Order: sequence, then C-alpha cells, then structure tokens
Amino acid sequence: MTTQLNAQWIVGFVDGEGSFGLDVHVKNDMRWKLQMQPEFTVVQNEVDIQILYALKDYFKCGSVAINRQDHYGTRYHYRVKSIKDLQKTIVPFFEKHRLKTKKRIEFQRFRRIVLLMHDEYHNKSLQNFLEIVEKGVELRERSRPAKGQKRTKVEEQLQILKATLVDNPNL
Amino acid sequence: MTTQLNAQWIVGFVDGEGSFGLDVHVKNDMRWKLQMQPEFTVVQNEVDIQILYALKDYFKCGSVAINRQDHYGTRYHYRVKSIKDLQKTIVPFFEKHRLKTKKRIEFQRFRRIVLLMHDEYHNKSLQNFLEIVEKGVELRERSRPAKGQKRTKVEEQLQILKATLVDNPNL
Repeated sequence: MTTQLNAQWIVGFVDGEGSFGLDVHVKNDMRWKLQMQPEFTVVQNEVDIQILYALKDYFKCGSVAINRQDHYGTRYHYRVKSIKDLQKTIVPFFEKHRLKTKKRIEFQRFRRIVLLMHDEYHNKSLQNFLEIVEKGVELRERSRPAKGQKRTKVEEQLQILKATLVDNPNL
Repeated sequence: MTTQLNAQWIVGFVDGEGSFGLDVHVKNDMRWKLQMQPEFTVVQNEVDIQILYALKDYFKCGSVAINRQDHYGTRYHYRVKSIKDLQKTIVPFFEKHRLKTKKRIEFQRFRRIVLLMHDEYHNKSLQNFLEIVEKGVELRERSRPAKGQKRTKVEEQLQILKATLVDNPNL
C-alpha cells in the first residue's frame, strides 16, 4: 500500500529535503550543443524509497530512480523534469502551498525559468538561451557545484556560445 | 513576525531534518559518572534560523542555539532535552501526528526512552541505567557515531560500570 501524503506534509518535507535546479549538459544534436532541463528533485535513502513513490502518486508525474551509490548505500530520487509537468503540476502546487524556508527563493527563481522555458523563450535567440543558463547559475548558488568533468565541458561550450554571440549579436 | 507553522508541515520537516537521540556524556558528580539526556533536535543553516524560532514558538519549550561553525558557515539547532517537556509536549505531538519516513522507528525507540526516564527507571538500579544506555545505542544506529574524544571517555566509564555490575549484581 502506498503511503498517503498531505499537501502541508509535502511542503515541510520539501523545505527540508527538496531541491529546484537547472541541469545543463552537453548534447551535440541540440542547436547550441547544450541541453537545459529544470528539475524538481527529492533524494532519499533506500529505506525510505516508499516516500518517493508516494510523491510520484501524489503529483501523478515524474519518476523514481537511483540517484547515487556509494559506501553509505544506495540513494534514490523522485524527479520531475518534463517542462509540461513542472508548469502544470509542480509550480502551481508550490504557488498554492508556500515553502517556509529560504528554499522559497530557490523555488521562485525556478518558477521563472520553468515559465520562460514553457514559452520557448530560450529557443528564440542565443541571447535568451544564455540568459536562462545564467538564471540557472543563480539558482545553483545555494546548492553544490556540478561535478568536475561534466561542468568543464559545459563551461567550454558556454564560452564558445558567448564568443559566438559577441560576433553575431542577432543570433 | 514569527513564521506560523502547521502540524503537518512540522511532521514533513522533521521527517526530513529532525532527529531523536540520547546524548550520553561523562559528568563526575552524577551517581554513575555518566549523564543521559534524550534530545529532539532540528538543525538549520543560519539563513533559516527563523524556522527554528517558529518551532520553539509552536511547541512552547526547548531552545535555539549554535550547533556547529565551520567553513560552510554557522548552523543552529532547535533542541528540546527537558524530560518533562519531551514527555508532555514532543512525544504526544508525534504520537498524534505520525512521521511517514523510517524516522518513525527512531521516534518510537526515543519515546520508550523518554517514558522510562520520566518514570525514573534509569535511577532505580545500575542494570536499568545500562539498559537505557543500550537503547540509546540502538537509537543512534541510523545517525552518526559520537565524536572521538567524547565517545572514548564515555566508553571507558561504561566499561567500568559493566564490570561493576558483574561484581555487584544488586546495584
């Protein structure tokens, strides 16, 4: 049987354990060779995986998968990264049920990114694209920096894009 | 203005961020030279200190203080360690509003310790005292081990007490 959740419990749990982020990774078949994905994530130890499935049940979107394996054990996450689901379900939920910690500021920045991306703002020009990437960096301030290797490749591509924009301001 | 909290939000937040523990430390003026204190604790970064004061306001007991200072900044805790307050306020709250993660098991063990200590069970014999210490160890299984120095002195005194009990089973 799935654990039944209640909205205020979810807000409290996400105030403690949730995160709102923008993942940026290299993807060569994309127009700017970078893909951006806003992500709402809750990570739990294996013993509490049922909570992640309960969140999935509650929001009726997203998925549960392995997040990290190390000598402490296996950690799982519940994650929503579809812009449609974020715009339709996750953002309205936290608009209605306000977070009480400073994570509310993280959510507000995340909300702005989701709404802009839902409107395809990032696909309208390279300048817009880079603007969203910057908003993602601001969002990350509170969280951990991206891992070395991956971050480096992303940074390289960002430098290329910024130089491209200087030479072609109408892109 | 203090943030207003709601019971289900608190349960969700404690499922994520709270802990129930038994602190055991050396105190030479105590009968067995060890003092045990059950502790309900919520730790937050400095930016969210207002949440800790909101918890104090809600429960009308406990205190907010510095928990740890390191290169990540200052962390604060809200903590209740008075057995009377734990028995009268904190335990009944989580009996009424059930935790949803495996922290519920931690709470159930904690509840047993608080109720026994409220009845002065640990002061009735050395055997009872050591029984409560053991229950505290079980409780800690999920959490981090106590710090080196402190732990060593406590362990030393526990070994002395266990040997004492073997020689004087009626203590």
